[in-house]
Amino acid sequence: MSRSIDLAVIPGDGIGQEVVAEGLKVLSAVLPQDVKLETTEYDFGARRYHATGETLTDEDLAALKGHDAILLGAIGDPSVPSGVLERGFLLKLRFAFDHHVNLRPSKLLPGVATPLAGEPQIDFVVVREGTEGPYTGNGGTIRKGTEHEVATEVSVNTAYGVERVVRDAFARAQARPRKKLALIHKNNVLTFAGHLWTDVFNRVAQEFPEVTTEYMHVDAATIYLVTQPERFDVIVTDNLFGDIVTDLAAAVSGGIGVAASGNINPSGQYPSMFEPVHGSAPDIAGQGKADPTATVLSVALLLRHLGLEAEAARIDEAVAADLVERTGLPARSTEEIGDALAARVAG
Amino acid sequence: MSRSIDLAVIPGDGIGQEVVAEGLKVLSAVLPQDVKLETTEYDFGARRYHATGETLTDEDLAALKGHDAILLGAIGDPSVPSGVLERGFLLKLRFAFDHHVNLRPSKLLPGVATPLAGEPQIDFVVVREGTEGPYTGNGGTIRKGTEHEVATEVSVNTAYGVERVVRDAFARAQARPRKKLALIHKNNVLTFAGHLWTDVFNRVAQEFPEVTTEYMHVDAATIYLVTQPERFDVIVTDNLFGDIVTDLAAAVSGGIGVAASGNINPSGQYPSMFEPVHGSAPDIAGQGKADPTATVLSVALLLRHLGLEAEAARIDEAVAADLVERTGLPARSTEEIGDALAARVAG
Ligand SMILES: CC(C)[C@H](C(=O)O)[C@@H](O)C(=O)O
Ligand SMILES: CC(C)[C@H](C(=O)O)[C@@H](O)C(=O)O
Repeated sequence: MSRSIDLAVIPGDGIGQEVVAEGLKVLSAVLPQDVKLETTEYDFGARRYHATGETLTDEDLAALKGHDAILLGAIGDPSVPSGVLERGFLLKLRFAFDHHVNLRPSKLLPGVATPLAGEPQIDFVVVREGTEGPYTGNGGTIRKGTEHEVATEVSVNTAYGVERVVRDAFARAQARPRKKLALIHKNNVLTFAGHLWTDVFNRVAQEFPEVTTEYMHVDAATIYLVTQPERFDVIVTDNLFGDIVTDLAAAVSGGIGVAASGNINPSGQYPSMFEPVHGSAPDIAGQGKADPTATVLSVALLLRHLGLEAEAARIDEAVAADLVERTGLPARSTEEIGDALAARVAG
Repeated sequence: MSRSIDLAVIPGDGIGQEVVAEGLKVLSAVLPQDVKLETTEYDFGARRYHATGETLTDEDLAALKGHDAILLGAIGDPSVPSGVLERGFLLKLRFAFDHHVNLRPSKLLPGVATPLAGEPQIDFVVVREGTEGPYTGNGGTIRKGTEHEVATEVSVNTAYGVERVVRDAFARAQARPRKKLALIHKNNVLTFAGHLWTDVFNRVAQEFPEVTTEYMHVDAATIYLVTQPERFDVIVTDNLFGDIVTDLAAAVSGGIGVAASGNINPSGQYPSMFEPVHGSAPDIAGQGKADPTATVLSVALLLRHLGLEAEAARIDEAVAADLVERTGLPARSTEEIGDALAARVAG
């Protein structure tokens, strides 16, 4: 039997190029001999937008669709107006490929600095909905630029969309030792969407009697994330609340330098996409200063998604060992960190 | 010349009763002889809702309108379905009295514990918009309870509403030593509302050349609030983002036990309302365990709003001194803390 991974690689803008190179290095090093890795690089992001005005065409989507998975570095540059690449590329891809499970683990590893006092135990995963809520782009503007301008944003939430992501989160909670799931929303103010989320959550809960559940308003959740982060095991939440709490979660569990994410289509109908939570960081781009760890951990999520659990675990262990070892040492370059991780997973 | 304050008092639910009693005690103690204080107590909240089904009637609003200001304890009880008192009382009042400046200072006082490591310097104020955004209650549900349910929430943003709160925030920044103002939004995703906020912010900025401005996405802002809180001086943001970042801000600057807020109508057309950021905490209600400090600090905001700056400053100083002194001592009761603060402001 021969196995192969057909991977689309999108380095993107800024430090995206540098961190993806190291991610691929570690991926090659960890794969067993019998797994063939084929990569196709795609040039998306600011450069292409400036050259052609395009962000992501139908042809691009058709090409990407043929791959087993996508590895993304970062997209975004100050030379492009805010929203153009976000809506035109990142969100367009998440919506086109129905990436409804946006998976963002937060684990404070030994040796890693946290802004929190004491020695908090942090090990949870956020399941953020990825295709609905305030991210749909519904809404509009009238009388733009005048004193009578009105701008609306419409959060769209469907039983179909909420149930599938809630079900995914329950299954993940069920598979973890603590079996806890928290729903985060703001159902006391956003009563239409909030009641839908809460009702679906409570209904699906009946199918998972072993899972302990709780509900929490998003404002209160930010308090718990800094005062009692050990409280969380699995969190499920909407697209916008998920965006906010996962950045805070990354901050308390070692920073966005080590935060990985997967934009997952569980059905496999479309390829899933894996990317570090951080952005393109144009201020440090091209200087070899970026930490590729978040990208390497995203590669582990990718392998796990493709069923290569042992290889994913080897990457997680290599990163954990590297983070302990780097404590107190002078900062290494992007490449040095990648080399160290590749050596560990190969050895 | 004789002066008087005609105050509406709404103790509300749970610990609201206890903390408001101490707030009034400190208020009476701080007022000069020549200022007459008249209070009228109103019974709103869970008890009244269960007894009459009412949350806030037109007659209630007419009665409240006649006062100079409102002091609120807390509203909310688990016996009332989520959203009923929030939308039916708290938000109804904020909208009816056009409380568009929701003012929430965050200051980490000496002696106060923070979940953050090190000794962060925290002293900023959030100006949260209070009458628009996702809080308008616009939206709805179709096919409720079925697998085809769709629920929407519409965030409504107007140039009128955004400009007045942005202008208020610029004026506050201008009056502070550091003169810094940060706009928090998510203009790369919520492009309709985000561009309105950003355009208005940049336009008003031209009238305040001394104020240094920055823009920050809400997700990034949560990171800065835990890694670099000293970065902030004044923040202006929309209703929902303001709800989220002010709870996080309260958490890092000593907890919601000391977080005060004002729901302000700057024109004076309607009375402004002052309340602690915390809720009714039914789990500790009636036990004398609640810390009345947040309510007492809300009384200081109330006095400042009414032009009694010296008295407001006396309360702030009394609280600062009390917080230093309580460090390491056994916990005092609600009443003991109120007595101590009243003694300080009177002395
Ligand atoms: C860049 C932006 C569109 C994106 C989001 O809001 O989802 C980012 O913040 C993220 O969390 O992946
Ligand atoms: C209780 C709720 C309606 C309220 C809000 O969301 O504004 C509260 O969280 C607050 O911050 O005052």
